Amino acid sequence: MEQETTIYGIRAILEALEANKSVDKLFLQRGLQGSLIKSLETAARKKSINTVYVPVEKLDRLTPHNHQGAVATISPIEFADFETLINTVMDSKKNPLFLLLDQLSDVRNFGAIIRTASCTGVDGIIIQKKGAAPVTADTIKTSAGAVFNVPITKVDHLKDAVYYLQGSGVSIMAATEKAVDLVYDKDFNQPIGIIMGAEDVGISPALLKLSDHQAKLPMEGTIASLNVSVACSVFLYEALRQRMAQ
Amino acid sequence: MEQETTIYGIRAILEALEANKSVDKLFLQRGLQGSLIKSLETAARKKSINTVYVPVEKLDRLTPHNHQGAVATISPIEFADFETLINTVMDSKKNPLFLLLDQLSDVRNFGAIIRTASCTGVDGIIIQKKGAAPVTADTIKTSAGAVFNVPITKVDHLKDAVYYLQGSGVSIMAATEKAVDLVYDKDFNQPIGIIMGAEDVGISPALLKLSDHQAKLPMEGTIASLNVSVACSVFLYEALRQRMAQ
Repeated sequence: MEQETTIYGIRAILEALEANKSVDKLFLQRGLQGSLIKSLETAARKKSINTVYVPVEKLDRLTPHNHQGAVATISPIEFADFETLINTVMDSKKNPLFLLLDQLSDVRNFGAIIRTASCTGVDGIIIQKKGAAPVTADTIKTSAGAVFNVPITKVDHLKDAVYYLQGSGVSIMAATEKAVDLVYDKDFNQPIGIIMGAEDVGISPALLKLSDHQAKLPMEGTIASLNVSVACSVFLYEALRQRMAQ
Repeated sequence: MEQETTIYGIRAILEALEANKSVDKLFLQRGLQGSLIKSLETAARKKSINTVYVPVEKLDRLTPHNHQGAVATISPIEFADFETLINTVMDSKKNPLFLLLDQLSDVRNFGAIIRTASCTGVDGIIIQKKGAAPVTADTIKTSAGAVFNVPITKVDHLKDAVYYLQGSGVSIMAATEKAVDLVYDKDFNQPIGIIMGAEDVGISPALLKLSDHQAKLPMEGTIASLNVSVACSVFLYEALRQRMAQ
């Protein structure tokens, strides 16, 4: 079900990279040699494209066509440029709301979060190039089409995004069960970037350390764990509630 | 993926019904005659079991075994008795929180809602026997096991459940985009039953008419629609927030 547009063939992928297409992931045949493949590897590295080396059987499963040892998946959406996005939003709005997703890997959760982000007026979603759930047909469907409305931007490292945001005057709030404070005791009437963590391990320790605030949701009962898209929605709606009350 | 336990054979199903097993749905072969099948039909009717008449091919797909024209799906959880549940909760708590799901049909949404209900201390989930999403393996998985923690009860008609709750002193709040008031302007510091509607058509007009309050969530942007499990979570957390602030 996780369909993406795939392109195949070394030259075709090289051209896509040169045309700045949103190449999501590059699959190269293990052990392949040649100057053309070297050029592709170099071009992919320059653009920080997630590249994996796989057996030829994997490539054959990705496409029935003559792939020459190279298959790439293309994202159906255009990603925004990180710095341009942040600068534009900061210049045009009083209290922007950004969302940073740390290694969120489930495409349905990603889609659900994009949908809620659209409904709560999030100004931009920031994900990392490596490890993040791709924008697939399932993401688009779960987002109810909202992927086309909320700017999404990819960065090499979320840490650098956090530094840049903080330098631009945005407070970073980590949503974590380990927090002492409840989300309701936090002030959302300021430029805020909310970090949500991966489904299994939460936010990485390095990002937690960098955050200006940590906040949690109250939990009753014994199954004290929410789905990440649900937790994210409650955080975003708390921001909206406080901002409406101003 | 929507696996449930199935039982087959007329006598086996009759015995399950007599033993008060949670038979979810009864599939009978179209046009089948005989006194035993008549007894089964009568027993199922008495217990308001959702019974459908299907071609024999459908039954063959449900089980590889000799089904004698009758297959039933058994819910993996035990449902609570409606009146006992409401009375017990009303006697033991000051401000109970109930959740009524009106024809919610997606098992994953159902599971996600049960999970959040567990985290927000919901005292009981009320669904209708016909038309509601069943408790399948997918429901259990999406609920992260919370199906075993939150009491769930099935009623013949949600309308009657609403009357009973109102008669017991519970205010009924319909979550609907058609509402004038925002959820934040409603008072959750009272016994409350929140109704969430079906994914496609929302809450049925008859239930909307019966409700004491109608409330909506604020919506930004152009895709003004939230996933029902997300909307439900924001409602439940607003109830929790208000109750914690008391």
